[in-house]
Amino acid sequence: MTAPPKNLIRREGGKIVLLVIDGLGGLPHPDRAVTELEAAHLPQLDAMAKASSVGRAQILPVGYTPGSGPGHLSLFGYNPLEIDFGRGVLEALGSNHALAPDEIAARGNFCSIDGAGVVQDRRADRPSDDECRRLCAALQAGVTLDGAEFLLLPGKQHRFTLVFRSEGLGHHVNDNDPQVEGKAALPFVAEDVVSERLASLATQFFDQARTVLAAEAKATGVLLRGFSSRPALETMEERFGLRSAAIAIYPMYSGVARLVGMDVLDPGSSLEEQIEVAKAHWDQYDFFFLHTKQPDQAGHSGDFDAKVAALEAIDPAIPALRSLGADVTMITGDHSTPTVHFEHSWHPVPLVLESSRTIPVADVTFDERGVLRGDLGTLPADSLVTLALAHAGRLDKFGA
Amino acid sequence: MTAPPKNLIRREGGKIVLLVIDGLGGLPHPDRAVTELEAAHLPQLDAMAKASSVGRAQILPVGYTPGSGPGHLSLFGYNPLEIDFGRGVLEALGSNHALAPDEIAARGNFCSIDGAGVVQDRRADRPSDDECRRLCAALQAGVTLDGAEFLLLPGKQHRFTLVFRSEGLGHHVNDNDPQVEGKAALPFVAEDVVSERLASLATQFFDQARTVLAAEAKATGVLLRGFSSRPALETMEERFGLRSAAIAIYPMYSGVARLVGMDVLDPGSSLEEQIEVAKAHWDQYDFFFLHTKQPDQAGHSGDFDAKVAALEAIDPAIPALRSLGADVTMITGDHSTPTVHFEHSWHPVPLVLESSRTIPVADVTFDERGVLRGDLGTLPADSLVTLALAHAGRLDKFGA
Repeated sequence: MTAPPKNLIRREGGKIVLLVIDGLGGLPHPDRAVTELEAAHLPQLDAMAKASSVGRAQILPVGYTPGSGPGHLSLFGYNPLEIDFGRGVLEALGSNHALAPDEIAARGNFCSIDGAGVVQDRRADRPSDDECRRLCAALQAGVTLDGAEFLLLPGKQHRFTLVFRSEGLGHHVNDNDPQVEGKAALPFVAEDVVSERLASLATQFFDQARTVLAAEAKATGVLLRGFSSRPALETMEERFGLRSAAIAIYPMYSGVARLVGMDVLDPGSSLEEQIEVAKAHWDQYDFFFLHTKQPDQAGHSGDFDAKVAALEAIDPAIPALRSLGADVTMITGDHSTPTVHFEHSWHPVPLVLESSRTIPVADVTFDERGVLRGDLGTLPADSLVTLALAHAGRLDKFGA
Repeated sequence: MTAPPKNLIRREGGKIVLLVIDGLGGLPHPDRAVTELEAAHLPQLDAMAKASSVGRAQILPVGYTPGSGPGHLSLFGYNPLEIDFGRGVLEALGSNHALAPDEIAARGNFCSIDGAGVVQDRRADRPSDDECRRLCAALQAGVTLDGAEFLLLPGKQHRFTLVFRSEGLGHHVNDNDPQVEGKAALPFVAEDVVSERLASLATQFFDQARTVLAAEAKATGVLLRGFSSRPALETMEERFGLRSAAIAIYPMYSGVARLVGMDVLDPGSSLEEQIEVAKAHWDQYDFFFLHTKQPDQAGHSGDFDAKVAALEAIDPAIPALRSLGADVTMITGDHSTPTVHFEHSWHPVPLVLESSRTIPVADVTFDERGVLRGDLGTLPADSLVTLALAHAGRLDKFGA
């Protein structure tokens, strides 16, 4: 899906609300033969589905399991496969940090490095997550870069994200990971003139880290790779003519929304409050993105009943969402997170779209099998904003 | 569908079995209002469908009728429209001959050519298939090429395939068909230096054929076109990380499998034996392609009951196929061959995919209308291997 031709986009028209229920879709419980959505009592979502267009969103190509960053970008009308994400950017997004334009991110590993600079263990014997946090804090306190700030975001075990912040940094610097153990870490070399400062900053970080970590038993050095800057994307306003706002409690999702130029509003602390925030800013924006996280977390935990409960906790807020009075209200997920799978999965995600121009089907329900009877079929997620533009009266006819 | 990014593909994981039932799909019988699949008693396929994901495979773009070669390549995860098949390669595949790397194929016509070299009838008054076989045998016996072997594959009426075999042949040689009658056959001219030997071999063949065929009433010469070599395709292992084996009784299908780097195993002489062969080689491969031919042959015959019987003959083998214990078992066809149509058709083909991560729908049946109720919808056939990779735990998440 490419965005519609610019000359078809009307800069005025109705309002669009998109609620993303993270990890929405699931799979049948092996003993109960129903999915989480099917097991859940969701009278409000079912009522909305029966009054709406219903189908499924195919987030990425068939079989691809979406990460949260690509999943959301697709829902926002961008093709993640065409966006040149560096590894560092993806890691930063995954650590709830959306890069600012003056930042460069790299994926980091703690490693065991000897006095001669030879890497003995590329993962420092896999420290615990707590250890990783302690080591990151030590580096944050102990390293000082010449003319640049930096931020360390701890990850799982030996993993962290390193963000350099300074104006005018190029990012074409090699990885220093020798890829095999028993070899020296590679020197950082700029591949172009504009990246020379970053190579110098990375070298400073690497050298000082060895000093700070010298007394550690295992994690005596760092390996850095995938230096990358924020991808330059059209804003939602440029691409779709939509003044857009994100109302998301978790920073990761506000971060992805910032990548496409959304304003980020203070979300409060519950879906009910997020809906109130949308109401309070109703006149300022054309597109409201609301995000709710709990079903995904329950999916990752593998706790079927917890996911059912998380879905049931969302349901009572649906009337308030609908009564915002948007011309188009869409609810879907950024990917499925089936509890039997513990992780994101590749399955299409249930989708409901309410407007005054839909074709409701009486016997749909808002679950994986119930939406199969709906009128939308399975739509590429990156076409949903365009479909919403049409329903909102924001898209001209193509051709005479 | 392009193949997934290489960095997402895990080189280990579960096993995948694909059974292709050639010509699987059909159309309603005009008097009985049911299709061949609907008329057939298929308790095993229906039971599998009810426990699986179900839908349809769209083999080529909507409305395209697939030949067997492109149909299979699509199922193997390749886009036949992006593959530069010369006409000769497709003809050779259609004659059950998969080109070796040192072979060049051309499509041939017997023609009527006079003493002055003028083509009087481009199809030699359409000889019978038997006549075509006799003429090919005469040429095979009577022509000797300088430093190259050749192989003649008779086709229907005036058509044959000519395969030249010699190391280092280029294939950029023009067609010699003048396209209109009353004109002389064109001389063969190489378009580059490396194709000069082929131009010489084609000229030798053309000249000697006129001598061998001089006493024939009609078929006194040959026209050759579409000189082409085997397309260079990524192997299934390179593209998907799958060590792959073909277990097909008809050579054509082993041939197409060879084009994508599959090993070809001795299939025995029945589907039951093919399944035993897969079992015997279970540890050596990740992907098993089994092919069964009879439903297509019955479709071509136009005999509705014969196609029903061919489908019913497959059904009892399904439990053994499932009990191979693959992580993913897929059954579909390379195209439909409705008996009312006598030929391949453009209709999507029923598809069933069994794994532990599916969304079964209780009221599906394994036939053209029953699969419409399934969860898969209509999927591009060239995305099926990617989907199977996901189900087999062989595909990493896209992005964080």
